[in-house]
Amino acid sequence: MMPSRFERLNQLLETKGLDAAIITSPSAVKCFSGFSHFFETGPSPFQVSPATLFFFRNKGATLLLTVDEWHNTATVLPGINILSYSGYTFEQPLHYSADYAAQSLDLLRANSSAPISIGIEQNSLSFNLAHAISQQYPDCRLIDLTAGLTGIKSVKDADEIEQISLAAAVADIGQESVMQFAAPGITELELFSKVRLAMESLAGKRIAVMTDLVSGPLTASGGGNPSNRIIGRNELILADFTPCVNGYWGDSCNTMVVGTPTNEQRKDVALVEKALKLGVQAVRPGAIASDIDRLMRQQLAAAGGFAHHGGHGVGTVYHEEPRIVPYNESRIEPGMVIALEPAIYRPTYGIRLEHLILVTREGNEVLTKFVHRFAP
Amino acid sequence: MMPSRFERLNQLLETKGLDAAIITSPSAVKCFSGFSHFFETGPSPFQVSPATLFFFRNKGATLLLTVDEWHNTATVLPGINILSYSGYTFEQPLHYSADYAAQSLDLLRANSSAPISIGIEQNSLSFNLAHAISQQYPDCRLIDLTAGLTGIKSVKDADEIEQISLAAAVADIGQESVMQFAAPGITELELFSKVRLAMESLAGKRIAVMTDLVSGPLTASGGGNPSNRIIGRNELILADFTPCVNGYWGDSCNTMVVGTPTNEQRKDVALVEKALKLGVQAVRPGAIASDIDRLMRQQLAAAGGFAHHGGHGVGTVYHEEPRIVPYNESRIEPGMVIALEPAIYRPTYGIRLEHLILVTREGNEVLTKFVHRFAP
Repeated sequence: MMPSRFERLNQLLETKGLDAAIITSPSAVKCFSGFSHFFETGPSPFQVSPATLFFFRNKGATLLLTVDEWHNTATVLPGINILSYSGYTFEQPLHYSADYAAQSLDLLRANSSAPISIGIEQNSLSFNLAHAISQQYPDCRLIDLTAGLTGIKSVKDADEIEQISLAAAVADIGQESVMQFAAPGITELELFSKVRLAMESLAGKRIAVMTDLVSGPLTASGGGNPSNRIIGRNELILADFTPCVNGYWGDSCNTMVVGTPTNEQRKDVALVEKALKLGVQAVRPGAIASDIDRLMRQQLAAAGGFAHHGGHGVGTVYHEEPRIVPYNESRIEPGMVIALEPAIYRPTYGIRLEHLILVTREGNEVLTKFVHRFAP
Repeated sequence: MMPSRFERLNQLLETKGLDAAIITSPSAVKCFSGFSHFFETGPSPFQVSPATLFFFRNKGATLLLTVDEWHNTATVLPGINILSYSGYTFEQPLHYSADYAAQSLDLLRANSSAPISIGIEQNSLSFNLAHAISQQYPDCRLIDLTAGLTGIKSVKDADEIEQISLAAAVADIGQESVMQFAAPGITELELFSKVRLAMESLAGKRIAVMTDLVSGPLTASGGGNPSNRIIGRNELILADFTPCVNGYWGDSCNTMVVGTPTNEQRKDVALVEKALKLGVQAVRPGAIASDIDRLMRQQLAAAGGFAHHGGHGVGTVYHEEPRIVPYNESRIEPGMVIALEPAIYRPTYGIRLEHLILVTREGNEVLTKFVHRFAP
């Protein structure tokens, strides 16, 4: 049985009167095909896009990727057809742009006598393919589906929750590593090296990690990537790890002290812990996103608070709906996965704590199992 | 004085009768604006593309990026204007797609009464922007400039060579780290952790690294990312590091043994060293790319040889023109930067050595200073 997100996508096309969808953003391609690629080194010089999914209403779906990517299709979902276009070889000149467009047109021809309306993602669909389609089918309308896909993606199926839980476990071991290895005299990059090794060893491979790992006064700004800065005694370390494992992301933040904190810092940590607890308790079906945000924000307002979101959805992208922000009046639904990250930022230090939370039918389950603690 | 690549781009537009170019691939944006972004965590959910460069013939150039990216504009070249569109805030809903298109149209309007012909990159220009332009200027032609840009990018200016040299030094320290830390009993990921720390400490920050780091029989396939595989005594390690520092890439490969090699392995290393030396000697202005490839390939044919390119250009992307391959009859020019990587692959092991080479007026200069060696 296909996961429910495929039915919801089919329903979206039906509602909008669309014959097909061409899905091109890596995040949506992962969600609707299972395919993810190694993106840490940026866009490949040998392909138009990491992969493209052609979804035909009431028919089926075909994933189009380069021949070079066949080795990486183990995670493609059952029932998704796979078709390839030419990649790089040393034996003949590159012609992937033309081949990608030609294969795409073949696919459209084979599945529809004359496509009238196709849902697309306007920010990632290439001019190359859009132009080829409009030349071949002058009457074809290309309709942006971004908002609809965002809605579908925000509610996770069971197979997705399993994968996010694995990514959460990888984030957890990153936090444990900070507690184990943080020490005065080493650099932030040295600490990150040990943290990343623990996370990659658990994943069994290299993984992308969005990271805040800063020390001392840098924590006041809320984060940033690690540098050669040497961690000082009694300094705080703010560690926010967002690792991607097989295309799904985890998210966890802790703040700890390398030595002895001040009394004010102790008090602030307790306040942020309480705000996070309030937030987690409020996560349940039917809750309003902005209410969860307000609960945490009000709790910390007198202490300086935080000038960022209270949280955000997590899935095949590290930041998606539902955004836990003052303006979002959307209702929380079962299957959503939400990171909450209340914080206090003082002039000389910052404290942020974060959990990743699955919305269940009854309430919620915290997916990050790391127990926040301030002292090692 | 602007680097010569801007004159060459202006000339390309003149030759093709184009009023402007809209540059959207991260690689070309880096080359023609100096702007590079952190791409290790994949496409951002808060922007249309990492940045877009609008280059107006005989006028000037403007870089369009989100407000969130202002902090990252230190490397933008002098003379490039910077304009921003809305990014993510927690205070109001996202509207970056519409804002990006609107700002782009404003830019076109301000620099041209009615643009007739614009050069574009067909694989990275979004439908979003292309559609907005065609609605506003129904007579406007969008002409793919990919091939022309590739040609310009393959010849580097002095400021680019300086940056590639820094990336080469980062690759070098990666190789030295393998010689220092490789040992039986540790995993490939553990070794990579130390290697990456050395590279990132030299760069002073996190960097993307395309990597082959495999041991034992895995070397026979030519590479792959490190895993939890434990390195065994007397096994070979194939280490190919392609780090990106501020948007420019380095490239270096070495093969070493953790213990004692076989006599056949010793002989093969000597053969690959000789092939690389022959290749490097052949790199000079006027040489034909395929001749350099053939020299190395013939030298190793009797020993099994390699079923991949002899080498490739390196710059703002890790693999570009001039490709050193059998079919490429192009002439090598001063300012090109070329990686050569001859190899021998046997059924149970593989050996590859690589240098990064700058083509000078007189001949060449090897930018990677690491001295290949088989034993630690």
